[in-house]
Amino acid sequence: MDVNGPGYNNQGNGKAHQNQDTIRSGLPVQAMQKNERSTHIPGIEKEVDIINIKGIEDIGYVQSDSVLLNSLIPEENTRCQHGLYFQDGERRVDYVLTYHIKKPSSSRSNRHSYCFTDNAFTRTLRRGTARLGRPPPPQPRGDLEVAPHDHSMDYHEDDKRFRREEFEGNLTDMGLELEKDEDTKTPGVGFVKIHAPWHVLCREAEFMKLKMPTKKVYEVKQSSGVGAKISTLVSKATEPLHPNVEENRVHNVKHLSYVFEILKRTKCTKAKYSMGFESNILCFCVFQLLYEEWASYSVFYKYQPIGLVRKYFGEKIGLYFAWLGLYTQMLIPASLVGVIVFLYGCATVDDNIPSMEICHPKNNITMCPLCDKACSYWKLMEACGTARASHLFDNPATVFFSIFMALWAAMFMEHWKRRQMRLNYEWDLTGFEEEEVSDHPRAEYEFRVMQKSLKKEHKTQKTEKEKLTCRDRFPAYMTNIVMMLLMIGVTFAIVFGVILYRISTNAALHLSNNPTTRSNVRLTVKTTAAIINLVVILILDEVYGAVARWLTVLEVPKTDKSFEERLIFKTFILKFVNAFTPIIYIAFFRGRLVGRPGSYLYVFESYRMEECAHGGCLMELCIQLSITMLGKQLIQNNLFEIGIPKLKKLIRYIKSKRRSFQEEEREKKLQRYETDHFLEPFAGLTPEYMEMIIQFGFVTLFVASFPLAPLFALLNNIIEIRLDAKKFVAELRRPVAARAKDIGIWYNLLRGVAKVAVIINAFVISFTSDFIPRLVYQYMYSPDGSMHGFVDHTLSYFNVSDFQHGKEPMEPLHLGYPVDMCRYKDYREPPWSNTPYVISKEFWAVLAARLAFVIVFQNVVMLMSDIVDWLIPDIPKDISLQIHKEKILMVELFMKEEQGKRQFIDSMTPGGGKENSNKHAPIARSRSIPHTHSHTHANNF
Amino acid sequence: MDVNGPGYNNQGNGKAHQNQDTIRSGLPVQAMQKNERSTHIPGIEKEVDIINIKGIEDIGYVQSDSVLLNSLIPEENTRCQHGLYFQDGERRVDYVLTYHIKKPSSSRSNRHSYCFTDNAFTRTLRRGTARLGRPPPPQPRGDLEVAPHDHSMDYHEDDKRFRREEFEGNLTDMGLELEKDEDTKTPGVGFVKIHAPWHVLCREAEFMKLKMPTKKVYEVKQSSGVGAKISTLVSKATEPLHPNVEENRVHNVKHLSYVFEILKRTKCTKAKYSMGFESNILCFCVFQLLYEEWASYSVFYKYQPIGLVRKYFGEKIGLYFAWLGLYTQMLIPASLVGVIVFLYGCATVDDNIPSMEICHPKNNITMCPLCDKACSYWKLMEACGTARASHLFDNPATVFFSIFMALWAAMFMEHWKRRQMRLNYEWDLTGFEEEEVSDHPRAEYEFRVMQKSLKKEHKTQKTEKEKLTCRDRFPAYMTNIVMMLLMIGVTFAIVFGVILYRISTNAALHLSNNPTTRSNVRLTVKTTAAIINLVVILILDEVYGAVARWLTVLEVPKTDKSFEERLIFKTFILKFVNAFTPIIYIAFFRGRLVGRPGSYLYVFESYRMEECAHGGCLMELCIQLSITMLGKQLIQNNLFEIGIPKLKKLIRYIKSKRRSFQEEEREKKLQRYETDHFLEPFAGLTPEYMEMIIQFGFVTLFVASFPLAPLFALLNNIIEIRLDAKKFVAELRRPVAARAKDIGIWYNLLRGVAKVAVIINAFVISFTSDFIPRLVYQYMYSPDGSMHGFVDHTLSYFNVSDFQHGKEPMEPLHLGYPVDMCRYKDYREPPWSNTPYVISKEFWAVLAARLAFVIVFQNVVMLMSDIVDWLIPDIPKDISLQIHKEKILMVELFMKEEQGKRQFIDSMTPGGGKENSNKHAPIARSRSIPHTHSHTHANNF
Repeated sequence: MDVNGPGYNNQGNGKAHQNQDTIRSGLPVQAMQKNERSTHIPGIEKEVDIINIKGIEDIGYVQSDSVLLNSLIPEENTRCQHGLYFQDGERRVDYVLTYHIKKPSSSRSNRHSYCFTDNAFTRTLRRGTARLGRPPPPQPRGDLEVAPHDHSMDYHEDDKRFRREEFEGNLTDMGLELEKDEDTKTPGVGFVKIHAPWHVLCREAEFMKLKMPTKKVYEVKQSSGVGAKISTLVSKATEPLHPNVEENRVHNVKHLSYVFEILKRTKCTKAKYSMGFESNILCFCVFQLLYEEWASYSVFYKYQPIGLVRKYFGEKIGLYFAWLGLYTQMLIPASLVGVIVFLYGCATVDDNIPSMEICHPKNNITMCPLCDKACSYWKLMEACGTARASHLFDNPATVFFSIFMALWAAMFMEHWKRRQMRLNYEWDLTGFEEEEVSDHPRAEYEFRVMQKSLKKEHKTQKTEKEKLTCRDRFPAYMTNIVMMLLMIGVTFAIVFGVILYRISTNAALHLSNNPTTRSNVRLTVKTTAAIINLVVILILDEVYGAVARWLTVLEVPKTDKSFEERLIFKTFILKFVNAFTPIIYIAFFRGRLVGRPGSYLYVFESYRMEECAHGGCLMELCIQLSITMLGKQLIQNNLFEIGIPKLKKLIRYIKSKRRSFQEEEREKKLQRYETDHFLEPFAGLTPEYMEMIIQFGFVTLFVASFPLAPLFALLNNIIEIRLDAKKFVAELRRPVAARAKDIGIWYNLLRGVAKVAVIINAFVISFTSDFIPRLVYQYMYSPDGSMHGFVDHTLSYFNVSDFQHGKEPMEPLHLGYPVDMCRYKDYREPPWSNTPYVISKEFWAVLAARLAFVIVFQNVVMLMSDIVDWLIPDIPKDISLQIHKEKILMVELFMKEEQGKRQFIDSMTPGGGKENSNKHAPIARSRSIPHTHSHTHANNF
Repeated sequence: MDVNGPGYNNQGNGKAHQNQDTIRSGLPVQAMQKNERSTHIPGIEKEVDIINIKGIEDIGYVQSDSVLLNSLIPEENTRCQHGLYFQDGERRVDYVLTYHIKKPSSSRSNRHSYCFTDNAFTRTLRRGTARLGRPPPPQPRGDLEVAPHDHSMDYHEDDKRFRREEFEGNLTDMGLELEKDEDTKTPGVGFVKIHAPWHVLCREAEFMKLKMPTKKVYEVKQSSGVGAKISTLVSKATEPLHPNVEENRVHNVKHLSYVFEILKRTKCTKAKYSMGFESNILCFCVFQLLYEEWASYSVFYKYQPIGLVRKYFGEKIGLYFAWLGLYTQMLIPASLVGVIVFLYGCATVDDNIPSMEICHPKNNITMCPLCDKACSYWKLMEACGTARASHLFDNPATVFFSIFMALWAAMFMEHWKRRQMRLNYEWDLTGFEEEEVSDHPRAEYEFRVMQKSLKKEHKTQKTEKEKLTCRDRFPAYMTNIVMMLLMIGVTFAIVFGVILYRISTNAALHLSNNPTTRSNVRLTVKTTAAIINLVVILILDEVYGAVARWLTVLEVPKTDKSFEERLIFKTFILKFVNAFTPIIYIAFFRGRLVGRPGSYLYVFESYRMEECAHGGCLMELCIQLSITMLGKQLIQNNLFEIGIPKLKKLIRYIKSKRRSFQEEEREKKLQRYETDHFLEPFAGLTPEYMEMIIQFGFVTLFVASFPLAPLFALLNNIIEIRLDAKKFVAELRRPVAARAKDIGIWYNLLRGVAKVAVIINAFVISFTSDFIPRLVYQYMYSPDGSMHGFVDHTLSYFNVSDFQHGKEPMEPLHLGYPVDMCRYKDYREPPWSNTPYVISKEFWAVLAARLAFVIVFQNVVMLMSDIVDWLIPDIPKDISLQIHKEKILMVELFMKEEQGKRQFIDSMTPGGGKENSNKHAPIARSRSIPHTHSHTHANNF
């Protein structure tokens, strides 16, 4: 059994690459990346469009030739014709497979060849071969292609041709029509154009229970009264926000959709003509519309034309953009509230008693040195700036905001469920079930199974169907666990390294006495540390992506779906740990275990643990968060995302240029599918989703410390949508449309992040901020119930005479006067108590209060989220009403039809056939019961 | 518009009430209770059986008459014939409607008449009338029937007859065949027997996308190798546990099922004969089998024959018993572990250092008086018994056990999801969607809407479709909220009353000096208090059930489904609060705010707050739990459930006897459906589920304090299953089979209880038990890391001279020696500290530890539950494989069929018709591609 597949590559076909990258045809382009292998029940959504075109074309061919062609401008028409149709000029090319023809000069290009992923044709094929008693052909995969067969190129080539022919035979068996074209202008590449006839499409549609819109249109009921007026007003007000796309205008009319087979049954033979399919030709103008009304920064304030996106790219990508759109939309209120909370902080900074007390010149408290020997005493007033800045993020409004954001996340989830349901309904996916198990085993899996059974055969001489057991996979699993732990360890080590860098430079800084050096160095250290962190995160992100892929390949998952899920899961964990470890360190560990003056804790015996500035670590957390978030977004998302595809495209182009420099002239006359060679293949949605979910993490996880996060996310996403749109429209080969009902594993990950966010925010509020100590002071210790005296209460006393030998400051007179007693921020017993410097009762009381707050916060927020979840129905009411209405209409239709049939049979068999005796027996009554027959028997379906 | 409906009652028909209550026919009996109105897409599941019978019968009628009749013993055959068939003896009675004929002597019986709920026929009817342009008939409801029309009986009767006739006309329009029989022996009751012909059943089945098993059988693949051997071994070992029912034997063969309409399409005209339906005749022996193999205590150790139950009672009841069975099964490991934990407590009671210290005669600590004045000093040794008993439930194993039970609950949920999926598959419900919106509005709702629109019409002279808005419902909602709060308040008040009873009698007790009186009174008080609590719970449960129903009626919910859900929700809240308030009081409030010696806290200035015995409140919690749980189970579930139906049946019987005493002789010759008059109507599953969910609460919520709860639940449930089975088989009229895919709202309630259980158990362990103080002592304060000295550590000192005047004990020399310093259980500063009797640092430290434990416990358990949720797939692997296999088989079938068709068309139109030109165009190749046609065209479907 060969893992390579018949050596095909397939290739986006029919892409009119005119105007450099604006106009392309509406034919499917195969996704060629390894990432994107999920639920490709593929191309078939595509085929809906084809069916629609065909419904016209087939008639058009017989009756008049102009239906489709009218939608093309004349010169386009003639220009595309030879690329888009078979050589008979009649049958349209639905799909193109490409393969490399062995030429000694370009044999290396084999390495770079692309293979098709699972699609409608392989699906068809697989079924066919299975029926013929042959094993289903393995799904060919590019990345395995050359590896084991490098040494015998010729044999390999023959073998390939043989298998290719077998494959093509199977395709024709399935009813597809092929046309070969090896004589292209692109050297070393052969093309097989495929036409799928009407009956094949019908059959496939039937198997998939594809729902088709019928001619029957019903009006979507608009609620009358005040509600209707308001909604009209709203829709008028948001009018400019909608894209200039036709489909948005007519959404109070819906075509009645029903499962394909039913429609077919209803009018079996006349299907092609009277099926009544809506003839929504996927014309070239869809592309133009998308380019103008979607993939442009100038329309950033508008809704996306999701229906069009779905029509062109398929449901899976449509769902991604719908999700991104909803997320961005939901970020608007969140960032508004965030800005208000921030402004509240700014407005109340002058009324904040603790920072007033710190800044007040009269309250001039002498603080203990922050390190042994090198440091000296300092005045609390020096912390005035930090204290005031801290208040911006550490005020009661923050607590409200983090509760708000937790509920916001729950609302977002619910709204997404509803939006998804609505899209499912509008896209007629309601009956569609994703084929989970029928996903074909991956080639690697089959290869491994084959190896295993071969080995076993050697031993036992008995052939039996094998599968990979846990024992076979044990080494891979172990490697996985070890590597994951190792990678997480690397992250920790690097974070620790950065900490050490900060600590050591800080220590060096304290040795210098020049104040300007000091402030300069401090700034330098903070900036460089943050930048190092960011760079490390960016680099490790790439490394982790590769590691996760490698680990998943090691695991040999059975199906593509399982492969993708495992890969996403691993990547998610690694990237999340990578992005959030430094932040978690600052939020929960920094400044916790520092000891006290005279007995500071040391790492490696020489580096003192970092402390937070007076006013809590919240300020530092906020800085770290904003740098990481902004840096990641600017560099990773935008720079990488725009730059790299452009670069790759350039490289491809140059490479091809060099190879066929002499053919430059001919290139202009290339077939559409040939020009598409130079586009970057579609890399799957995983990176897009991953980026967004990490951003969602930034928005929700530490929102208590950084209320502006939603705003930054919003600004990023407004660009991101159009950027992604541009990329999909112009930079990438058009991916094969894949059907999907939901966003899959991403929804679960979002839920997970939202859940974790609740507990993390609870901890940030209670442990990182000074919210709880302030409350405890106010209600337990304050003499007058106000915050006056809070600063004094949080500072413990230290008797200078208690310094151990060698730990006292070298410059005790730094402040200009001798110090007997200094203060430090901690809850410890004073020197004059029985147990000096021991943790005091206040500490425990505050700790208990902090913990109680965590419990209350977590449970209240979880309860509220559950209530939100419960209050918002998953299916929007209007959708469920419409579904119901459709059902009733359908029933009505069938009732009429049945009656027509019965009448027909009645009229045919006047006495009622013997076999139908019971069916048409006269209605029996022992008493007279009135019986009316007033149905209309017209069958106007 | 009339709310009464046509004045029908319907009635279980064809129930052979032979041998008093053993053998009944397989025909549907209408559920007549108001409770059970949920997803009655009803009777249709039933109709599957009817179809099956019919498939035989229709042939049997034409070909040979013996197919069905063979399954009856001869004399049964003749005996039933006239009751089960129309007067022509051919058409079978599928359903019976009953109505009351106005006779002056029995006009009051109108009040007791039953009305049919939503069923297949009203469904059919509704559609029919809607088509005829008339408004759909309101769903008639018994409880509204008489109210507004009591004054004009004659008009009422005429109106009823008119509407009845209209109704009957509609039924016949829909294709049903009726036969009236007013001449029965039961006075005042008329019967309309209904026969549903084959084509009507087909149509209905089609609308419901009913899946039917085809003749095509495929073998369910058994995994080979070691796994298979083990499973064979296991199935052999559990062989005696399976009921002696045929269906359990052949479960490695499954009939290929497919949506009805597809099958019909495939073989349209010959459907009745060659459809290939499995002919599983629902013979009378099903009932006999159920009676012997299910509704009998002697088979308590066996699995339930769920398939049979479903066949006889429908999916909804089948699911209840399946759920109950799984729950009981899952209780086995839980109760095993619970018993082990309890035994561990018993075994280690002698090694428990704290109780050893309390009981040791040397450690003879003098304790402070427990109340002012009346009480005196006492020895700690007196608490020895309680301390030892407490250890049984308060040991480290309990913590493990409550984690185990939280995971157990998660596992139970997951297993139920899987079982449900499996049943859905086995019962061919996989494609079935419950019609949510299409549920018809309830009559009350339509009545209210009519009233409203009439009122509006008066004002505006404009008729328009109205609906109830929030404003209309506002008074009802307010009443709901107020009443719910009031009811909860009543519960609290009663619990508080019981507390006061205990406090006051205890106070009286302390005034007496006779030790025997004391101990007697203490016992009496505890017992009476517990019994009062139990009685109050039992009474309030009934009251609350009525109140919840009344409140829900006030709300006027739109559909039956919404009515049921609201009712269940309210009932659940009230009953839960009722059952758990006393327990929560003991667990979390008792003994918390008691003050300290010398300044005890008082309620109403004279009653001291209750304190727990030394050793924590866990012991008392345990006692209260076991009494409530056992009492509820014994009295409410078993006594009420068996007793009341028996009683009601007796009353009915006697009543009817008295009325028609002279007709006693004739009674023996009654039609089957007449004898069923004397059975209790089916009251819905709500009480059964409610009972079980409250029990689930007892098992999970406070399991940390009572590890034996699962065992008690298990014992109860083993009886409960057979009890319910007996009730359903023998005591109740056979309910109309209702289709259901899941257990609906109950699953959500279960999830809710399981979630709440985690946090409650966390609090029980950390606050009610002494687990955390022990840990804190061991790791923070213990000089040698052991538990020695723990008791001393938990006791604070009190200086006797600090007693305020009038609060010192009256008998200071009660112990025989003068006391200077006494001890009490609390963490307070000693008399010699600077702040005597103030809460100490230890208190805060322990509190912080307790709270930290709650956070850790809750989050760890939630995480573990999520992991369990994630690890266990919702769809069992074999089921998803089988679904996949079925799909493939189906596809294969259709492919063959299509090919057959194509061949046929090809042979008919030799040149290929013009309209099929594209379809059959010769396959085009510009290069030669091999093309093989080796399909088998045999259509052996």
